[in-house]
Amino acid sequence: MKKTLNIANRQLSSRFFLGTGRYPNPFVQNEAIKASGAEVLTFAIRRVNLDAPMEDAILQHLEVENFTFLPNTSGAKTADEAIRIARLARASGISDWIKVEISANEKTLLPDPIETLKATETLVKEGFVVLPYTSDDPILCKRLEEVGAAAVMPGGAPIGTGLGILNPYNISLIVEESNVPIIVDAGLGNASDVVLAMELGVDGILMNTPVAKAKDPVKMAEAMKGAIEVGRLSYEAGRIPKKKYATASSAYQDLML
Amino acid sequence: MKKTLNIANRQLSSRFFLGTGRYPNPFVQNEAIKASGAEVLTFAIRRVNLDAPMEDAILQHLEVENFTFLPNTSGAKTADEAIRIARLARASGISDWIKVEISANEKTLLPDPIETLKATETLVKEGFVVLPYTSDDPILCKRLEEVGAAAVMPGGAPIGTGLGILNPYNISLIVEESNVPIIVDAGLGNASDVVLAMELGVDGILMNTPVAKAKDPVKMAEAMKGAIEVGRLSYEAGRIPKKKYATASSAYQDLML
Amino acid sequence: MKKTLNIANRQLSSRFFLGTGRYPNPFVQNEAIKASGAEVLTFAIRRVNLDAPMEDAILQHLEVENFTFLPNTSGAKTADEAIRIARLARASGISDWIKVEISANEKTLLPDPIETLKATETLVKEGFVVLPYTSDDPILCKRLEEVGAAAVMPGGAPIGTGLGILNPYNISLIVEESNVPIIVDAGLGNASDVVLAMELGVDGILMNTPVAKAKDPVKMAEAMKGAIEVGRLSYEAGRIPKKKYATASSAYQDLML
Amino acid sequence: MKKTLNIANRQLSSRFFLGTGRYPNPFVQNEAIKASGAEVLTFAIRRVNLDAPMEDAILQHLEVENFTFLPNTSGAKTADEAIRIARLARASGISDWIKVEISANEKTLLPDPIETLKATETLVKEGFVVLPYTSDDPILCKRLEEVGAAAVMPGGAPIGTGLGILNPYNISLIVEESNVPIIVDAGLGNASDVVLAMELGVDGILMNTPVAKAKDPVKMAEAMKGAIEVGRLSYEAGRIPKKKYATASSAYQDLML
Repeated sequence: MKKTLNIANRQLSSRFFLGTGRYPNPFVQNEAIKASGAEVLTFAIRRVNLDAPMEDAILQHLEVENFTFLPNTSGAKTADEAIRIARLARASGISDWIKVEISANEKTLLPDPIETLKATETLVKEGFVVLPYTSDDPILCKRLEEVGAAAVMPGGAPIGTGLGILNPYNISLIVEESNVPIIVDAGLGNASDVVLAMELGVDGILMNTPVAKAKDPVKMAEAMKGAIEVGRLSYEAGRIPKKKYATASSAYQDLML
Repeated sequence: MKKTLNIANRQLSSRFFLGTGRYPNPFVQNEAIKASGAEVLTFAIRRVNLDAPMEDAILQHLEVENFTFLPNTSGAKTADEAIRIARLARASGISDWIKVEISANEKTLLPDPIETLKATETLVKEGFVVLPYTSDDPILCKRLEEVGAAAVMPGGAPIGTGLGILNPYNISLIVEESNVPIIVDAGLGNASDVVLAMELGVDGILMNTPVAKAKDPVKMAEAMKGAIEVGRLSYEAGRIPKKKYATASSAYQDLML
Repeated sequence: MKKTLNIANRQLSSRFFLGTGRYPNPFVQNEAIKASGAEVLTFAIRRVNLDAPMEDAILQHLEVENFTFLPNTSGAKTADEAIRIARLARASGISDWIKVEISANEKTLLPDPIETLKATETLVKEGFVVLPYTSDDPILCKRLEEVGAAAVMPGGAPIGTGLGILNPYNISLIVEESNVPIIVDAGLGNASDVVLAMELGVDGILMNTPVAKAKDPVKMAEAMKGAIEVGRLSYEAGRIPKKKYATASSAYQDLML
Repeated sequence: MKKTLNIANRQLSSRFFLGTGRYPNPFVQNEAIKASGAEVLTFAIRRVNLDAPMEDAILQHLEVENFTFLPNTSGAKTADEAIRIARLARASGISDWIKVEISANEKTLLPDPIETLKATETLVKEGFVVLPYTSDDPILCKRLEEVGAAAVMPGGAPIGTGLGILNPYNISLIVEESNVPIIVDAGLGNASDVVLAMELGVDGILMNTPVAKAKDPVKMAEAMKGAIEVGRLSYEAGRIPKKKYATASSAYQDLML
């Protein structure tokens, strides 16, 4: 793909944002990251040793200069908690990019719309590059853009469920109305889910569990990398319209040539 | 993909079977064929000049030794008509492979199950390599295998509709019960349809309209080639199970790390 | 509903065909039959004592003059077996209606298209009123009509799965092309499946497991009776078209009044 | 149905909330209202003459004592506007029930989550019985309950689209987590959509366009009334589980009896 994705003036040649948790072991994690081609890596701040972040098990195996780090605020139940985590991350030198992820629901980990909007607004004012994880509510996604989100990240389904894109219509609406990149984050399971998301016009995919918990995570990372590229290509190539019948008497002749 | 597809003792490194009709012009057709990586090409016998087939507009631009030709019997309304077309094709030296395609319904071009089974049985006995286009009826697909089909080709949806795989459950059953390759033929529209088919475990894809009538057929040929590869890779990598909730109290901790 | 369903010159005021197997006990079975309002009852011939059919546990509790019996040939793996069962049923005086049900696949019990067509053709010639259970292959359904089926009964999904209508598109095509009543038979689970089938324009529903194995079979029989009536009413009332957006600037005013 | 729906200590024997806009004429509107059995009627405040509400064309034909009026704030783009409309409605003596409906998006009329929460909170404090129209975001629905909504009304799809329940999973989650009645409001098209909603466990349905714009609005009102009752009955009766195959060797015998 020639066209790159631009977020906060950073040019990304990969549209794949990869989570770093839940892999069977650090070796597989590292190989999967390489196979994915991802340039943006996300991880929970809590997991990282903030005093010496570069000694973290994840980060020390990577040539860190090749990656953009997108720490997330998972575990935060309120805007205040998320804001505090973001400030710690920046203070420790990891990144001024932050994925706002706020949930008070331990069963579904679905994001809180009110707290997410509040934290996004505050962190944007403090100079962060903010990418909020949100529900697929089209109006909320627009509000997040309006308060300055660098990209908006609606979920396809709840985290880790693998249910795919439960509401393609909403994702399509969000894309139509948006002026910032839309990254589908959470809930995907399969490569066909990824391709469908890209064909709906989204700009990128954030994924963790479907790669980390696949039977072969490295091969799945490769598949998902390909799926993002194929989906984008298909989107650009312009699909045929759906029809109830392909044929009328004339089209029948056409088919027969 | 290392694993190749074996049909009638021919090793195919591509799982993409491409139709040659309906392209805007011969140049685009040729470029799309190249971009697709397809090794098997299908076309209606009626279109080809049977006296001098290699002078046919389609075929003369290709290095024919690189391809397996799969002429089809489209236009046939009965087993007898299909058998006659198959014999003509073989007599003219094009191929002893034949795609049985029989329909008496001009609106949908859906295949006739009875005539298709009859023609398949006869042509197998005459030494043809027979690949019948059929509905997604799992029992019929099994019957076609039992009478000697080299591969069975259920449709995802009616020809040219772009509706995708209307009944993934049936395709999945067909794969489970089959001992010959299953090629999804007809009805697909998008790259995500292709990836889904491959993730259901089918062995290959036959496609024409979604490539030939895309806004950019050459780019779409490339997308579909990638989709088949990505779908196979994803199938082999082993997806995560779908769950209603990803998290229980312990899994919550896991996610939080 | 005022309009009645006419099959083989019998006027049915109910569009519900009910199976009599798998109920927890004869009392519940009997109450469910009453609650369903069904006028046509189906059962496997093997279960009935053919020497004295009216002493059968099922039948003796019913005022048999109120019902049309539709014995089925389940258990038959070939046309010949089905034909033999049908003749036994007629000879014993149960009915000259017969539901042709032929499957050689014990896992799915999906009907064999070839044997089903053969048995239907033969039994029609012998004067039976034949209602074949078939896949949702639209061409096969048309062939069954052409050999004289009094009604055609495509499955929504395999027997007993409760998966609903896996391919509404096919059911819709079958209805469009048909000149005999279409009864959806097998695979439904819920009342919404039934309403959807009726909204697609089918003429009736045959059901057993979803009623017999519900937590409360009698209440479910009542629900399904209502679902068939509601679905028919909705079909007749003419639904609004689906739109991507309901509103344009003028329609917005309309909504606001 | 014996169980009634209780909202703000009012016992409703119908679970159908009907909108009064967009009918072809007042006569059809009146007949449809009667056929629906609805006890709660909703309408835009702007349409009603607030100085003499009982002279309004809609209301004067009805025996008003039989209905609960649920005026809505449609047209409001902010919480402040909605609050103002609600106060006017109460001051004019129509009702102290209010459907909060706030949208700044004229294309989709999707509700604004932030403003909706704000208006709900304020109006509850002022003693209104508040029923907010909201997206199907499960966390937002819970927040609306927490600030005192008497019932929560997630949309199945955007108003007037007839697309049905785009995300049944979310509706199911909302029901699971809720302690107040859940009323599906907006986007439904067909009776099967209504039955499905009820089978997911929702407590009621609010609908306008699918009735008012049906080919036969009065018949459709009757169908939708039935659909709500049938869906509730089916929900209570307890459906069979979905299975990939209904049969194992033993179950096969069972089916055969």
